[in-house]
Amino acid sequence: MVTLADARRVIAAAEQKAGEIGQPMNIAVADAGGNLVAHVRMDGAWMGSVDISIKKAWTSRAFDIATKDLAPLSQPGKDFFGIHASNDGRVMIFAGGIPLKRDGQVVGAIGVSGGSGKQDHEVAEAGAKAF
Amino acid sequence: MVTLADARRVIAAAEQKAGEIGQPMNIAVADAGGNLVAHVRMDGAWMGSVDISIKKAWTSRAFDIATKDLAPLSQPGKDFFGIHASNDGRVMIFAGGIPLKRDGQVVGAIGVSGGSGKQDHEVAEAGAKAF
Amino acid sequence: MVTLADARRVIAAAEQKAGEIGQPMNIAVADAGGNLVAHVRMDGAWMGSVDISIKKAWTSRAFDIATKDLAPLSQPGKDFFGIHASNDGRVMIFAGGIPLKRDGQVVGAIGVSGGSGKQDHEVAEAGAKAF
Amino acid sequence: MVTLADARRVIAAAEQKAGEIGQPMNIAVADAGGNLVAHVRMDGAWMGSVDISIKKAWTSRAFDIATKDLAPLSQPGKDFFGIHASNDGRVMIFAGGIPLKRDGQVVGAIGVSGGSGKQDHEVAEAGAKAF
Repeated sequence: MVTLADARRVIAAAEQKAGEIGQPMNIAVADAGGNLVAHVRMDGAWMGSVDISIKKAWTSRAFDIATKDLAPLSQPGKDFFGIHASNDGRVMIFAGGIPLKRDGQVVGAIGVSGGSGKQDHEVAEAGAKAF
Repeated sequence: MVTLADARRVIAAAEQKAGEIGQPMNIAVADAGGNLVAHVRMDGAWMGSVDISIKKAWTSRAFDIATKDLAPLSQPGKDFFGIHASNDGRVMIFAGGIPLKRDGQVVGAIGVSGGSGKQDHEVAEAGAKAF
Repeated sequence: MVTLADARRVIAAAEQKAGEIGQPMNIAVADAGGNLVAHVRMDGAWMGSVDISIKKAWTSRAFDIATKDLAPLSQPGKDFFGIHASNDGRVMIFAGGIPLKRDGQVVGAIGVSGGSGKQDHEVAEAGAKAF
Repeated sequence: MVTLADARRVIAAAEQKAGEIGQPMNIAVADAGGNLVAHVRMDGAWMGSVDISIKKAWTSRAFDIATKDLAPLSQPGKDFFGIHASNDGRVMIFAGGIPLKRDGQVVGAIGVSGGSGKQDHEVAEAGAKAF
């Protein structure tokens, strides 16, 4: 279970990290079913990243993987090239999504979008640690 | 014709192979029209693979080809690059779909998703053999 | 104007060429607005090519270009990479679509799908010549 | 705020530039929310570029970036490869979209489609300068 209280704690930690980096972010938390629990768009964060943050969270839960690690598998010539065309456009194959685990089990995910791939992943990691 | 009994036999064989490999899978069987006859998500299989397994089966029937063999044709620079944008996102261009044949004629397909490309194809092959 | 009689003549010529090649094809003819005038699926042609043939015709009219010539412009690193994501998935960036011209003006298009890129283009060309 | 008068002024400047280049264009102007304020299709401009011009404007506002600069980041192997699958197909990753700024703040965008990437960007730039 990912409660709203959990999601708020995760988002607060991610938000703080984004503040330290100085890059406003969209931050989304999904539950075990991949459904959104909470989302924030920090002031000044990209409008186009609302959707991406939510879908990165969905993707991380849908395949129990950090989207950073899905990226290399989804390049031309690789095993999963073309996966982004599945699931009606919900699959994000670039960094910023991380599964949320409890007792080694994936029970949700965080998705972050608003900066470079490295920044997005870093902020997501800060959020995931607070879970 | 692919009957429900056929589909269940195909799925059971695929499921057994997936068990041997130790990788839970989504397994889908489609009829000659590409429509789903039956699908199972083995416990622990990726949520995002539900859609992919169904669409791999559709793709294999739609082009009478194993998706493994469609993959190299669909890479950048190749004859079919861009085919994944057709058919409203139903075309899966990576391994795991195999046509089901009767008397040399394609009458349906199996689609598998849940592991590496090699694993998906192997499980699909086990299913197809049971047809 | 592309009349139904025009479309039938174009399709008949394309169909004959496909017969000579020995590869069953989907053949579609669109008018100046990109809307379908007529389509045939030859017996044994791929089910997944119905949509592709129609969209190749649309694409050829939408950009007044043979899709064969759109392909190199739409590869990674090229000017139009990403164009296949536009127009709600109607843009086909591989061979088989050719504009139909009258007095040097594009007034419609033919789209063919069912074989290799070379075959599709060849069949489309036979159809276009009959216009 | 991007008023209709603003949009008309931007479009007129872009249209003039397109005329000088001798390439008919689709030109779209979006507001701070990414919503269309005005669009023109110059006589003879590609039908398929209507949608692309509107989405280039949306993309430029959605990520506060010229689509020309989004292109290199969105190639295979790069940070944002796969971004074109997000936002329901509204993300255009090739040249022709430019943010419109007031006092250093992005308040809208222009999107142009109808020629080569270089031409589209050049025409968009002419429009943006008139803002």
